[in-house]
Amino acid sequence: MASVQDTQIDFDAMVADLARAGRAAQRQLARLPSETKAAALRAAAGAIRANGAGIFAANVRDIAAGEANGLTGALLDRLRLDPARLESIAAAIENVAALPDPVGEVIGTSIAPAGMELIRRRIPIGLIAIIYESRPNVTADAAALCLRSGNAALLRGGSEAVNSNRAIHAAFAEGLAQAGVPAEAVQLMPTQDRAAVGAMLRAAGLIDMIVPRGGKGLVARVQADARVPVLAHLDGICHTYIHHAADPAMARAIALNAKMRRTGICGAMETLLIDAAFPVAGALLGDLIEAGCELRGDARARAIDPRIGPASANDWDTEYLDAVLSVAVVDGLDAALDHIARHSSGHTDAIVTRDESIAARFLDEVDSAIVMHNASSQFADGGEFGLGAEIGIATGRLHARGPVALEGLTTYKWQVRGHGETRP
Amino acid sequence: MASVQDTQIDFDAMVADLARAGRAAQRQLARLPSETKAAALRAAAGAIRANGAGIFAANVRDIAAGEANGLTGALLDRLRLDPARLESIAAAIENVAALPDPVGEVIGTSIAPAGMELIRRRIPIGLIAIIYESRPNVTADAAALCLRSGNAALLRGGSEAVNSNRAIHAAFAEGLAQAGVPAEAVQLMPTQDRAAVGAMLRAAGLIDMIVPRGGKGLVARVQADARVPVLAHLDGICHTYIHHAADPAMARAIALNAKMRRTGICGAMETLLIDAAFPVAGALLGDLIEAGCELRGDARARAIDPRIGPASANDWDTEYLDAVLSVAVVDGLDAALDHIARHSSGHTDAIVTRDESIAARFLDEVDSAIVMHNASSQFADGGEFGLGAEIGIATGRLHARGPVALEGLTTYKWQVRGHGETRP
Repeated sequence: MASVQDTQIDFDAMVADLARAGRAAQRQLARLPSETKAAALRAAAGAIRANGAGIFAANVRDIAAGEANGLTGALLDRLRLDPARLESIAAAIENVAALPDPVGEVIGTSIAPAGMELIRRRIPIGLIAIIYESRPNVTADAAALCLRSGNAALLRGGSEAVNSNRAIHAAFAEGLAQAGVPAEAVQLMPTQDRAAVGAMLRAAGLIDMIVPRGGKGLVARVQADARVPVLAHLDGICHTYIHHAADPAMARAIALNAKMRRTGICGAMETLLIDAAFPVAGALLGDLIEAGCELRGDARARAIDPRIGPASANDWDTEYLDAVLSVAVVDGLDAALDHIARHSSGHTDAIVTRDESIAARFLDEVDSAIVMHNASSQFADGGEFGLGAEIGIATGRLHARGPVALEGLTTYKWQVRGHGETRP
Repeated sequence: MASVQDTQIDFDAMVADLARAGRAAQRQLARLPSETKAAALRAAAGAIRANGAGIFAANVRDIAAGEANGLTGALLDRLRLDPARLESIAAAIENVAALPDPVGEVIGTSIAPAGMELIRRRIPIGLIAIIYESRPNVTADAAALCLRSGNAALLRGGSEAVNSNRAIHAAFAEGLAQAGVPAEAVQLMPTQDRAAVGAMLRAAGLIDMIVPRGGKGLVARVQADARVPVLAHLDGICHTYIHHAADPAMARAIALNAKMRRTGICGAMETLLIDAAFPVAGALLGDLIEAGCELRGDARARAIDPRIGPASANDWDTEYLDAVLSVAVVDGLDAALDHIARHSSGHTDAIVTRDESIAARFLDEVDSAIVMHNASSQFADGGEFGLGAEIGIATGRLHARGPVALEGLTTYKWQVRGHGETRP
């Protein structure tokens, strides 16, 4: 007589089994020569190109299901694969294959007082879980970054992309097999049940790190519930402070770019702090309004341009991810620093000024993962930082901050070479 | 009419208030010149010496209470302060004052593809909580390490040392005041209520990191309940593998030292793996038995010396912290690696061999925070590693591993210096 219990799935046991398999594969991965890992990635890129027809067919099923389920046009667009997007997925894998392998790098050497040689050497972290939403390219991107850095990956993509993710994962696995890399090095969760995500979040000691990739709801849930360390950012409430000594043309170009180039990315400016003594504030704000941005300002900002609406207290803590900007007029650097200390999410904050000593104070005193002088906050990105790729941007204070790529996917061990030393 | 609620303490609010005060002080601390922080530490050491009489009087009250409460002799010994111990507390603070300041160090520079200069610079982590047990010296040690690295400290010592800790903290605070460092840079929890510890563990976003210092019960509770990142090690199940090509005299000296120098420290050997082909296994095991160590072995070990008792399955996963050792005979490196992979706590594992290629494989393939060749695992210590001190030893995989000192109490930020770059 089967009980209800018998038909329920034990997701903790499922995650434990997947994690043990992933960890076993990772121990092999950790010892592979760099070139073998690179060859596996190139083979995976080739297999994704070779399996294009099957991947598109799977994607068509996801798109049809998404339309039937009433997904918005923006979500359908994120989900959709076409030949150009598939080629960019394959090329991104090849790009990661070409990045320098961080594993084995010596990050410090010294001699212990008792005489042993101490070597700190980079090693992979272990098993990394990536929990993501609708973009199927994350399946390949995250797998490639984990593999290049010697980590096993446990992927859990969004339900709306389930067929696309399975097809991409299957092609990726073909490439690994061609290079002799164990299949369990990159695993896709075999269920879309949300309870399985809960089991992943609880898997301390089995999963070494979780990277959530997606909207604020997903990241907030992972941060609130995870018993495993999480690498993430929740908000990108990025400030740009236009100091009174800013070059006027540069300030206008940076402000417009920081807000309007792409409004939906985490590095987009959400609050503009404009110095009361900056001479062309009206022109700068006018640029933004004329580019289609809604401005919400304090009383002093509204006095500059009547087209600026009132900002509520919430606006200073809001990540719009849209063509909306909060604007405050401040009296000098200290007022700007104070506003940023109270409202920044610790992601990216920027100053525009020709005054080097003011810039130096801003770069030293603003406590965010990324601080910028005379540049657009839209550069907050691993590719733009020359890292070749990124697994995400972190605003936590430990381990890795800002754009995280291969180095942030490693840890280190101490290797001690002695000559028979015993401790007195 | 006062309700019961009115008389209860809101520990979350208490911790939030302390954390906000600590964070405000830390923002000042982060900007202090290195020499000011060093001067404050030297002044704190001087104040501890000057207040010796008061500190001893407080300690006498703790000892009397401990005796009345039936504390064991070992615990009373940990608690007891005498002139030599007080001097070593003061000297340790001066030692930390003399260590190089990690704050501001540039750990990487590069040029972004778009032309900005990228600088990764060490910064303090923020507010660090230390939760510890009976040794009152931790009050001064932890405060000194946090202050030197620009972090604020929130200290919560054991109830049995409450008077000693308050007296040491008060003296330390005198030193800070002399150097103009805000008092809230080093705070001692004003209550010994255990519920206050729960509030500290929940204080994500207010406390940046927690370091538990004490027995396994304390560390396990902190690791299980904390919503704040924890830097710690739970167990030190350290292995020493005597390879068949080990120098016999070196192997005997290292095995004896690794187990018997001090049996109660986390770097003490708990399991000896002895190669079946090692020629002087009997003599090596005899040394340990004759030094007073109880050996618990597998059948092959027991066949070497009848004085060896039987090991149960639990022994391989037990940190004795005593003159007890589990012993297994293994057939070669792979068997040793397999045993260590299954039973090591990831703290410190060592090999003794003259074969460099075998040693290299051991150092690469054992996945512990510290791996050693031809040295005693008792060297697993920040002082012995030349770090000058340690806040603790970490066996987690992220942020910092092995002995953690000033560098492990820092994080970094990206400073971006542009020339007006906007993102295309």
